[in-house]
Amino acid sequence: MVFDVVVEVTLRPGIADPQGATIERALPALGFDGVSGVAVGKSIRFSLESTDEAAARAEVEDLCGRFLSNPVIEDSAVSLTRVGS
Amino acid sequence: MVFDVVVEVTLRPGIADPQGATIERALPALGFDGVSGVAVGKSIRFSLESTDEAAARAEVEDLCGRFLSNPVIEDSAVSLTRVGS
Repeated sequence: MVFDVVVEVTLRPGIADPQGATIERALPALGFDGVSGVAVGKSIRFSLESTDEAAARAEVEDLCGRFLSNPVIEDSAVSLTRVGS
Repeated sequence: MVFDVVVEVTLRPGIADPQGATIERALPALGFDGVSGVAVGKSIRFSLESTDEAAARAEVEDLCGRFLSNPVIEDSAVSLTRVGS
């Protein structure tokens, strides 16, 4: 089975987010009002071939915890969509 | 109305993605097989206060095209969720 995987890696609450803070500070001067709580993260997309959905999810969770994110300062959210057999 | 906004900024097809290529090349040596087509992008989350959903979407699209992405090399996908009045 082939899955389309999207992993979103975001900074954990309380970890300084200077990119987000800079965007938020700049927007009112650029004419955009009403924006608050800006947070910048990474999105990682890939295709994964695996035997079933449970195995695919386990592999992606392991990958996230070990290589795609730093669990000390980052959270990761995984979404899997089956696209082929 | 208050909306939770998620913008995903990805490189356009054909634009070199060295981060994605590096991840993809490294994974087999780290014990993860079956991964292909790795692409790395940015996710930007924020809250937006606006009069209605159409106005909010227009403001976010404008913001994406002018400041959050470089339309020459990047695509952006917007998702809006209403969370309060």
